[in-house]
Amino acid sequence: MGCKNCCSICLQCLFGYETNVMLVINNKGVGALFRLIQFLIIAYVAVYVCWVQRAYQDTDSVISSVSTKVKGNILTNSSAAGVHVWDVPEYVIPPQGENTFFVLTNVIPTLGQRQSKCPEIPSEVTKCESDSDCKEGYSEVHGNGVQTGRCVQYSDTIKTCEVQAWLSLAKVAEDFTVLIKNNVQYPKFKFRKRNILHHINSTYLKNCTFDRKTDPHCPIFRLGDMVTEAGEDFSVMALKGGIIGIFIDWNCDLDFPERFCIPKYSFSRLDNKNPENNVAPGYNFRFAKYYKTNESTETRTLIKAFGIRFDVIVFGMAGKFNIVPTIVNLGATLSFLSLVTAVCDWVMLTCMKDRDLYAKHKFIHLNQNGDSVPLVS
Amino acid sequence: MGCKNCCSICLQCLFGYETNVMLVINNKGVGALFRLIQFLIIAYVAVYVCWVQRAYQDTDSVISSVSTKVKGNILTNSSAAGVHVWDVPEYVIPPQGENTFFVLTNVIPTLGQRQSKCPEIPSEVTKCESDSDCKEGYSEVHGNGVQTGRCVQYSDTIKTCEVQAWLSLAKVAEDFTVLIKNNVQYPKFKFRKRNILHHINSTYLKNCTFDRKTDPHCPIFRLGDMVTEAGEDFSVMALKGGIIGIFIDWNCDLDFPERFCIPKYSFSRLDNKNPENNVAPGYNFRFAKYYKTNESTETRTLIKAFGIRFDVIVFGMAGKFNIVPTIVNLGATLSFLSLVTAVCDWVMLTCMKDRDLYAKHKFIHLNQNGDSVPLVS
Amino acid sequence: MGCKNCCSICLQCLFGYETNVMLVINNKGVGALFRLIQFLIIAYVAVYVCWVQRAYQDTDSVISSVSTKVKGNILTNSSAAGVHVWDVPEYVIPPQGENTFFVLTNVIPTLGQRQSKCPEIPSEVTKCESDSDCKEGYSEVHGNGVQTGRCVQYSDTIKTCEVQAWLSLAKVAEDFTVLIKNNVQYPKFKFRKRNILHHINSTYLKNCTFDRKTDPHCPIFRLGDMVTEAGEDFSVMALKGGIIGIFIDWNCDLDFPERFCIPKYSFSRLDNKNPENNVAPGYNFRFAKYYKTNESTETRTLIKAFGIRFDVIVFGMAGKFNIVPTIVNLGATLSFLSLVTAVCDWVMLTCMKDRDLYAKHKFIHLNQNGDSVPLVS
Repeated sequence: MGCKNCCSICLQCLFGYETNVMLVINNKGVGALFRLIQFLIIAYVAVYVCWVQRAYQDTDSVISSVSTKVKGNILTNSSAAGVHVWDVPEYVIPPQGENTFFVLTNVIPTLGQRQSKCPEIPSEVTKCESDSDCKEGYSEVHGNGVQTGRCVQYSDTIKTCEVQAWLSLAKVAEDFTVLIKNNVQYPKFKFRKRNILHHINSTYLKNCTFDRKTDPHCPIFRLGDMVTEAGEDFSVMALKGGIIGIFIDWNCDLDFPERFCIPKYSFSRLDNKNPENNVAPGYNFRFAKYYKTNESTETRTLIKAFGIRFDVIVFGMAGKFNIVPTIVNLGATLSFLSLVTAVCDWVMLTCMKDRDLYAKHKFIHLNQNGDSVPLVS
Repeated sequence: MGCKNCCSICLQCLFGYETNVMLVINNKGVGALFRLIQFLIIAYVAVYVCWVQRAYQDTDSVISSVSTKVKGNILTNSSAAGVHVWDVPEYVIPPQGENTFFVLTNVIPTLGQRQSKCPEIPSEVTKCESDSDCKEGYSEVHGNGVQTGRCVQYSDTIKTCEVQAWLSLAKVAEDFTVLIKNNVQYPKFKFRKRNILHHINSTYLKNCTFDRKTDPHCPIFRLGDMVTEAGEDFSVMALKGGIIGIFIDWNCDLDFPERFCIPKYSFSRLDNKNPENNVAPGYNFRFAKYYKTNESTETRTLIKAFGIRFDVIVFGMAGKFNIVPTIVNLGATLSFLSLVTAVCDWVMLTCMKDRDLYAKHKFIHLNQNGDSVPLVS
Repeated sequence: MGCKNCCSICLQCLFGYETNVMLVINNKGVGALFRLIQFLIIAYVAVYVCWVQRAYQDTDSVISSVSTKVKGNILTNSSAAGVHVWDVPEYVIPPQGENTFFVLTNVIPTLGQRQSKCPEIPSEVTKCESDSDCKEGYSEVHGNGVQTGRCVQYSDTIKTCEVQAWLSLAKVAEDFTVLIKNNVQYPKFKFRKRNILHHINSTYLKNCTFDRKTDPHCPIFRLGDMVTEAGEDFSVMALKGGIIGIFIDWNCDLDFPERFCIPKYSFSRLDNKNPENNVAPGYNFRFAKYYKTNESTETRTLIKAFGIRFDVIVFGMAGKFNIVPTIVNLGATLSFLSLVTAVCDWVMLTCMKDRDLYAKHKFIHLNQNGDSVPLVS
């Protein structure tokens, strides 16, 4: 072959255009089936893939930083430890507000390493005549501790069950509030936002409390409200302690303006209150305060703290239009469109009255001797 | 049908090969269009999908463990609390270095629960003649506290504005350094790495300080540098406190050798310094030290601590070649190649001069009576 | 054109069905090749994509909450600090059990700000005759501290090397146990689970200890076992401190019943024990206890704590059948099936004996003058 011939073949390769030869049949049944399946696939892509699942978006996980600040003061008057004012540095442990904070609700102080015992404050339930009226180990929800089983003199005329001294902060802790500041980022989309939204002003923030209906964007939460939303009774939970999860959901569609990306709060109990498959139920820990009475002798007060730990758990995915997932999802669906032809061909060649006629024109059979013959004679 | 016939049909199904009958037309316009679109699609896949977005990779999120250690000593001389040496156990809270650490920069000690007041150290701004020269609530950036509005005797000849005692550690805290050790894992790829890279030796580590240009891999950071990189003024921020994020970006392409996977550090302020839609600006918390003067009496020193909290936030995605995403991305693009034929067919049958001729040969029309007729007579 | 004509064209568009005209050749080689490649692609999808990689699933990342509780008591008898009982509030710092806890294994107490020195307990290694037998800075694994280089009187007859007082809790800390409670969620699938499984009862939990073979679901871990599984020697590691990662892997296939989704535990050392490219090896921090001897004088005990920090790191991905990834993966594979035809055509038209014959029937060539001619005459 000469160069001219070679060039012409090359050109033919580059610019010659090959297209399928098509057989057009005028069968309304197959045609309607074909259009129906095509329509269903396109509708699925448009509605489900694009609209519901937003498969055209690239996604990124949230990066978060949280700071918390609890507010509220308590005055306790216990016969064991005297009048005592509890403020944030004492009942929030550790005092520094990170994404997990613990609020003390019940304390067993072990003064000089010995647990103190005292008569219960008189009430219908705690009054007694003899030891048999008191049940050892029993702890009343609104009582001050665990009964020792003994009936002791409360005043000159009244006897109550003796309890191991608990300082119950539960009744007041319910009214404490916590300010949660949350800063999130989606680094892939260079998106940053705070849970204190732009349109909220300082005056509103100073007085608001979160309420799902009236104040859904207020970042100040009443402890009692959170526990109630988690389906628990604060006073019951306060007795033995527990863990409440404060979930902040930052799922966002960043194709919409930034102002639509707002946090959704929810609350649920994280520890197991079911005693069946459980060990060490509730939430408590012991810590010590150290004192030196003189140069050499160190004493300490050991405190068993029961309370509610609040875990602020931030999660979420942001999506934004990206060409790669779009192409992948459209491309995959296009493949299915080519399947439609296979289905319709099968219907046409199997179920139709004129199937032999269609087959005769659709297929050109080539024998080994080079003649083209129809499949069905 | 006999078994022989049946077998022959089966064999024909299995080994008979069906291929499309193609019409080849010699139209340079359509041919060029066809090749151009094909080229664009292939170029898009090669450049954007494979090179830029690395869509052929499987990904995994980073798992991280951080330990931090702050170094530096401060000597403060305040008229309220006397000469005091501040060392790490006092100004880093909690003392244990986890991924969040707090550096005390300003303290309001409440000795015996009462806030102490003292005259400000004399300077151009703090000197006064009468109470009217002092502004209540005003806090000078480089001053020692919040002015009470009264003008008091500092020495025999000088009067200065009275301030509530703040122990400002800001001036020295700027020079503190923090060593950040970060251990990351990509469990899906069984990849582990530390932020102290292999080629760095102990001698270098003992003396280096992070600098974006000269020492980008040194894991020791000067607090002042980090705050400056975040676009803040250390002395201003130290006054009321705040939160600085130390971001460690471990985005890695694990198809490259392990030594190319290095952390990138960046810093930014996480709390809101804008007073408009803010509540409780800055960062502070109160904590208490407990003392017992004799057996029964407990006293405490309540301390309001202002300072900068540093959150070490580790994030990143690793990618590594995997056949599944590769197949998905190539397959989806292949689907689009089949679309090209549809586009070119439309051009050929609509815009070309010879469109009727092309249509006549491309389509074989089958009427209901079984004859094949051309669409256009 | 009249409306009737227009309508008939529309109907033809909607219900006319176009199908490819196919050439069927009876070549066993090409046919077998075609079926083979088709089979390989389908097998790849079925086995690798669906079974191994579970690409038909939508995935979600785990959200976790951890609480820990360490148990065990130590009695130390050091010549420097006297007999001392160490309990959880003293050797676990901070006392509150979150996902990171630190167990004290060695202490350098700095009583009254001065480090105490004392003779080592006599043993083969620590006995000495003169200063030259003691090596400054040397710390024996089972010894009580760092040698000062001086040889001092231990009793009337025995001299031992002087050491700086370390209170080694290492020998006993090995037997401590930690109860880890872990609550996980996959919010996308509304799935929640605890690491204490349903079928485990309270009686078993009170006595069990994790063992990979006999008790793989017991959530109570012996510290020594975890360090051993991480490939470290507890007594060596306890001396200088270190960080152990407790990894809880919650990878789950949620198409299976919930009971198959169980946590897998593993342990490894996270800090660098290699001294080459390291600074501040081990893990230690200093903290202080504050005392007031009288109204005005504050003293403190500064403690340098060496110990093992345990980081509970929870990770995992859950997968559940979802139609979108299924469609995408199947669709992409379908595209490859259409490639098979291209490969087989190339084989048929290049390698086969009858290639000219095949080409003649496959391609209909259209010249500019409107005649269809074969490529090869």
